[in-house]
Amino acid sequence: MVRNISLLLSYDGTGYHGFQLQENALTIQEVLEAALEKVTKESVRVIPAGRTDTGVHARGQVVNFTSVSPIPTERLPRAINSCLPSDIVVKGAWEAAPDFNARRSAKSKLYRYTLDCGPHPDVFWNRFAWYPLYKLNAELMIQGGEHLRGRHDFTSFRAAGSAVKTTTRHIIRLEWDFSQAPLWHLFLEADGFLYKMARNIVGTLVEVGRGRIAPKDIIKIRDEKNRCLAGPTAPAKGLALWEVKY
Amino acid sequence: MVRNISLLLSYDGTGYHGFQLQENALTIQEVLEAALEKVTKESVRVIPAGRTDTGVHARGQVVNFTSVSPIPTERLPRAINSCLPSDIVVKGAWEAAPDFNARRSAKSKLYRYTLDCGPHPDVFWNRFAWYPLYKLNAELMIQGGEHLRGRHDFTSFRAAGSAVKTTTRHIIRLEWDFSQAPLWHLFLEADGFLYKMARNIVGTLVEVGRGRIAPKDIIKIRDEKNRCLAGPTAPAKGLALWEVKY
Repeated sequence: MVRNISLLLSYDGTGYHGFQLQENALTIQEVLEAALEKVTKESVRVIPAGRTDTGVHARGQVVNFTSVSPIPTERLPRAINSCLPSDIVVKGAWEAAPDFNARRSAKSKLYRYTLDCGPHPDVFWNRFAWYPLYKLNAELMIQGGEHLRGRHDFTSFRAAGSAVKTTTRHIIRLEWDFSQAPLWHLFLEADGFLYKMARNIVGTLVEVGRGRIAPKDIIKIRDEKNRCLAGPTAPAKGLALWEVKY
Repeated sequence: MVRNISLLLSYDGTGYHGFQLQENALTIQEVLEAALEKVTKESVRVIPAGRTDTGVHARGQVVNFTSVSPIPTERLPRAINSCLPSDIVVKGAWEAAPDFNARRSAKSKLYRYTLDCGPHPDVFWNRFAWYPLYKLNAELMIQGGEHLRGRHDFTSFRAAGSAVKTTTRHIIRLEWDFSQAPLWHLFLEADGFLYKMARNIVGTLVEVGRGRIAPKDIIKIRDEKNRCLAGPTAPAKGLALWEVKY
């Protein structure tokens, strides 16, 4: 019997060239599919909810794949984990409806971006936080972010070279969490993200935080639909695909 | 003018063979002294509060060294950090009294040991927590630990091959923190630690937590002064020198 199996996946992306298969570089997909082939004895192709970039992490990536293997779904996480390196961990497995597609069925994706704003970098967060060398004003960054919530054309925050039908996205949540200060977490949820959109938003808000862009100018940057006006792309290491909602 | 300079140091010990210089292996001391020599233009020898083992981390290691360099003390952290890899960070510098010795002047040392007791390993804690493959009973581990507080001969928890004058140590604090569960942190403070004592205590308490040693048997293990009775040494990755008190 063919099952459509879905996995909840976490990884430290530091050592990988992103999720998606590449000819000459190690990717999460390659390592995961190799583990799945060992466990199921089948050739497996996974569909991820989001194709995380080089160096981006995941707490709650979701993938699905079809299999005729008789192995019980509840035994899959441990079986797969025993074939994975310690920086990739399957946290759950379930049998999905036949038409479930981890990418197309997703209603929204939630990312977390972490800034380390301490007087010196925290070595324990070296792999998972960006340490900007500037002093940042949190209040300005909160104000600037408010202009990005809602449904907008995010062309100004979209990296070149990506072909999509529409550049309109709906940011459902844009929320700072300072409870672990001096680590500042930005939770960013949208119905979809353009290429490097999350990191371009963070890079732009950091420009706001250091006083180079006024919070209200975010409206202009957004509405001009010109990538040149926004800030630089924030480093991959601070970003993690936190949760995919279905 | 000769200054006795003290540094507050943090590091991710994963890539190092411990603190102390070794002939054929990379150590924290080697990398730190090389950075200090670049900054001060002097040959520098540092004295650490504790010689952390291979793979052990530090949030608050303290070292001291003497220097005639004119560089202002408050500028040292940034200057040294610019010569250090990202997994070693100097968090503070101050001028100490001439007779201050980071090791001998220490009144107590506080270590943190982290167990990851989740249903699956947390990849974000892969470098800083031990994931024991057993289900652990926290209540039993708390009870077992109570017999180790206070002044005792800790021969049963001391790795072979270390020569010390006395094997009596005073455990001032032995406290579990479950606020980040399923990460369990054990804070362990003593006036001094025998070789691998912290990790042997954790390894023994894990045996208690999995039901192989009864909490009250910790008294017997302690009083027999026989290393063979206690549990195995817990992995280095979960241990961090948290704070040194003077």
